[in-house]
Amino acid sequence: MPQGTARKADYSDKSTKANILSLPLDAMEAERELHGYERWLINKLMRTAGTPPIRFRLWNGDLIEPEQSPARFTLHLKDHKAMYALVANPNLAFGDLYSAGRLDVEGDLPDLMESLYRSVHAARQKWPRWLDALWRNHNPRSTGITEAKENIHHHYDLGNEFYRLWLDQAEMQYTCAYYENADNTLEQAQLAKLEHVCRKLRLKPGMTVVEAGCGWGGLARYMARNYGVKVHSYNISREQLAYAQSESESQKLDHLITYVEDDYRNITGQYDAFVSIGMLEHVGKENYQALSELIKRSLKPSGIALLHSIGRNRPMLMNAWIEKRIFPGAYPPSIGEFMAICEHSDFSVLDVENLRLHYAQTLDHWTERFEARADEVTAMYDEHFTRAWRLYLAGSIAAFRAGSLQLFQVVFTHGDNNQLPQTRQELYTFPATPEGA
Amino acid sequence: MPQGTARKADYSDKSTKANILSLPLDAMEAERELHGYERWLINKLMRTAGTPPIRFRLWNGDLIEPEQSPARFTLHLKDHKAMYALVANPNLAFGDLYSAGRLDVEGDLPDLMESLYRSVHAARQKWPRWLDALWRNHNPRSTGITEAKENIHHHYDLGNEFYRLWLDQAEMQYTCAYYENADNTLEQAQLAKLEHVCRKLRLKPGMTVVEAGCGWGGLARYMARNYGVKVHSYNISREQLAYAQSESESQKLDHLITYVEDDYRNITGQYDAFVSIGMLEHVGKENYQALSELIKRSLKPSGIALLHSIGRNRPMLMNAWIEKRIFPGAYPPSIGEFMAICEHSDFSVLDVENLRLHYAQTLDHWTERFEARADEVTAMYDEHFTRAWRLYLAGSIAAFRAGSLQLFQVVFTHGDNNQLPQTRQELYTFPATPEGA
Repeated sequence: MPQGTARKADYSDKSTKANILSLPLDAMEAERELHGYERWLINKLMRTAGTPPIRFRLWNGDLIEPEQSPARFTLHLKDHKAMYALVANPNLAFGDLYSAGRLDVEGDLPDLMESLYRSVHAARQKWPRWLDALWRNHNPRSTGITEAKENIHHHYDLGNEFYRLWLDQAEMQYTCAYYENADNTLEQAQLAKLEHVCRKLRLKPGMTVVEAGCGWGGLARYMARNYGVKVHSYNISREQLAYAQSESESQKLDHLITYVEDDYRNITGQYDAFVSIGMLEHVGKENYQALSELIKRSLKPSGIALLHSIGRNRPMLMNAWIEKRIFPGAYPPSIGEFMAICEHSDFSVLDVENLRLHYAQTLDHWTERFEARADEVTAMYDEHFTRAWRLYLAGSIAAFRAGSLQLFQVVFTHGDNNQLPQTRQELYTFPATPEGA
Repeated sequence: MPQGTARKADYSDKSTKANILSLPLDAMEAERELHGYERWLINKLMRTAGTPPIRFRLWNGDLIEPEQSPARFTLHLKDHKAMYALVANPNLAFGDLYSAGRLDVEGDLPDLMESLYRSVHAARQKWPRWLDALWRNHNPRSTGITEAKENIHHHYDLGNEFYRLWLDQAEMQYTCAYYENADNTLEQAQLAKLEHVCRKLRLKPGMTVVEAGCGWGGLARYMARNYGVKVHSYNISREQLAYAQSESESQKLDHLITYVEDDYRNITGQYDAFVSIGMLEHVGKENYQALSELIKRSLKPSGIALLHSIGRNRPMLMNAWIEKRIFPGAYPPSIGEFMAICEHSDFSVLDVENLRLHYAQTLDHWTERFEARADEVTAMYDEHFTRAWRLYLAGSIAAFRAGSLQLFQVVFTHGDNNQLPQTRQELYTFPATPEGA
C-alpha cells in the first residue's frame, strides 16, 4: 500500500487552530491535579453542549460527573493540554484528540456521539448568536475543478484495497443502501438501492444514461446488466475508475458502459436519464446553478434526473472535523438549498424520498466490517488513521440517528415534460431486494 | 339561492386597472375598421406572448392571422375597446372580457389556454426585466385572520348547491384527485386520494388527527369511517361546515369528528397527525413561520404531518385574474418557498409527491360536469358567472398541463422522530381505489 505513508499526514493535526496539541508534553505537568478554573471550564463546556450524560476521567484519574443526569459514557482525557484544546475548539479538537489517542471513550462510541449530537442540537436553540456563529466558524473548501480533484483524491483514492475491506461484496457501494426489511444484509440492501434508483429513473432497454460521479462503477454495471441501457459514467478518482473499467471488462459489459475520467462539468450529449449518487455533497452550493444548466442540456425532453445526496433539515455547515480531516469541500444541502438546482432551470420535482435511517443502518454494517478488519487497516496506514475512521463512521451513524443528517433522493424532469408515470406504484410492485443475494 | 345576486358583482369588472371596459360603447365606433397602429399593437402583444397559433377575429369581421404558424384557435374581439383593454393589461383583461362575453374563443378553450401558457412561458425567458416585473404587477391580498375570512367567503361560500352540481358525488372533494389508473372515475379518484393521504399519515385506530381547512368534511369522515381515528377539523367557511356537520351526524360519525368553525391559527391540542388538503394556497407566505410553529406544537413526538397544496416549479405570483376574481389571497408556493415551513421548526421531510397531471384530469372531470349543468349555474347566478367559472376551470386545466402549476403532497415529521416506516411500500400494497366506487 504505497498510499499508507503518503496519506497518513492528512489525518494528523496540522491546523493552526488546534496547534495547542503540538506543544510538547511535560511529564510532571501530565500528572498534576485539576485547577479550580479548569473544572469550571469543563463544566462550562458541558453546559454549552446541553449537559449530556457524559463524565470526564482525567489524566490523574480524577472524575468530573455531569451536573444533571447520571453519566452513561466516560470521556477519558489523557493530558491537560488535550483538555485546553477541547475547550478552545471542541468541534475540531474532539476528532483530532480521539484520532491521536489523547482522548478516549468508554461506552459505545456511536451511542455517545448520538447522545452528544442530540444534546448539542437541543442546546443550540438557546445559544446566543455569537456562539452559534463561532460553531460555524469555517467555510468548506472550494470545489473548483482543480480543488475538486484534490478533495476527491483526498478521500476516494485511499486505495481500493482499503474500501474493499469493509464495503459490500456485491458492487462496492460507498453510499446509503436501501433496506426494504430491517434484517436485510448489506449486500441485499446495496443491490436494492441500485434497483430502487433504476425504477425511479423508469429505465427501459436501449435508453441512455449519464452518471455524474460513479464511485467504483457499480450502478453503471447494474443498469447495463439488468436494464440493457447504455451508460456514460464520469469520475475524477483514477483509482476507482481503474477498478470500474476492469470489472466492466471482466463482466463483458464494456460495450454498454463508457467510464470517463473527467469532471462532471465536462459531460456532453443528451440522455434519457441523468443520475448522481452521493456526488452532490462534493459539488458545493456555489456550483448548483451550473449543475442545473448542465442537467438541463444533458436531459432529453422526456428525460428523468435523480440526485441522491446527504442533506440537512435546514442549512448548516458540515461538522468542522469531518470537513477538514475526512471530506474536504463537503456540504450537505437542505431541500430548500437543493431547490436552487431545480428552480434555476424550471425543473419539476416529481418525488423526494428521505432514507435517513437507512444510512444509519448502512453505517452500522460498515462499522461492523471495519472493526473486524481494523488490524489490517492499521497495518496499511497506522493507528491514528484507524481511530480517525472509527470516529468518522461512529459520528456519521450518530448524525443520521439524531437527525442532524438526512439522505434525500430527489427525482425531477423538465418543467414541460408530460410523459410522466401515472403513480409511483411501479416502484413497489416487486421487491427491489434480489433473491438469494 | 340567496347568494346568487349577492355574489354576482364579485365576478364583474370593477377594478380601476380595467376600467377602460366600463366606458359606454358607441355603436358607430363598434363597426369601424382597424387603424394601422392598432394592428401593430395586436401584433406586438402577440409577439410578446411568443406568437401563439392564435388568430383574431375583429368586431367588423376582419381577421388578423398569427405571424409565424398557422392559427389553431380564434379569439373573437367583439369591440375595439375590448382590444385596448387586452393590450393594456392582458393578464387581467383576458378573463374579464371573456366573462363579459366581449371576447370569445373558437376552438377548445383548455387547449387554447395551454397553448397560450406554453407560448408565454417560453417567451418570458427572453423578456426584459421591466416587462417581467409588469407581468407580476400585483401582490396577493393579505391573509390576516379578518381578510382570510373574506377571502374564503368569496369562493367557498358560493353555496353548497353550486358545488354539488359538478363535484364528485362521493365526498364533495374540491381538491386534486388521485387517479391510480387513467380511466378511473372522479368518484374513484377522489376516494383514492383520501385513502392515499391516510396511508401517508400511517393512521391506526384510536389515533388523533387535526385537519386545517376541511372543505365539506369528506376527509374527516373518510378517516373516521375507515381508520377509526378521532378528527378535529377546522374551517372558516360556515356553509361548508353546516354541510359537513349534517353529513357526519347522518352517517353516525359525530362521536369521532369535531368540526370547528375557527381559523386554523387557533388550533389547540396535540395529535398523531396534522393534515391540510388544499389550504396552504390560501395561507400566504408571510404566515409560513407561524404555521410551522403551529404544526410543531400540534404534533406529538412521533406525529406525521401532510400538506397537500398547489405549487410552482419556482416562485411566481398567481395569475392576476384568478387572484382578483376567483381566489383572493391565493399564492401557490414553490418547494423552496414551502421549505420555510419545514426548516423553521427543524422538521424532517420524509416524502414529496407531485400529482400535477392528476389535477389536470380532475379539472377535466369537473369541467365535463360543470358544462352539463351550465344552464343551472346560469339560472343560479348569471351568464357572467358561468363564463368566469368556465374560464377559470379551463385556465386551470391548461396551467397544470403546461406545467405552470404543480400539486405537491409533502409529508414531514419532527427532526428527532425515529419512529419512521421502513419504506413507502405500504402505500402501494393494495390499490387505493375502492372497488365498485
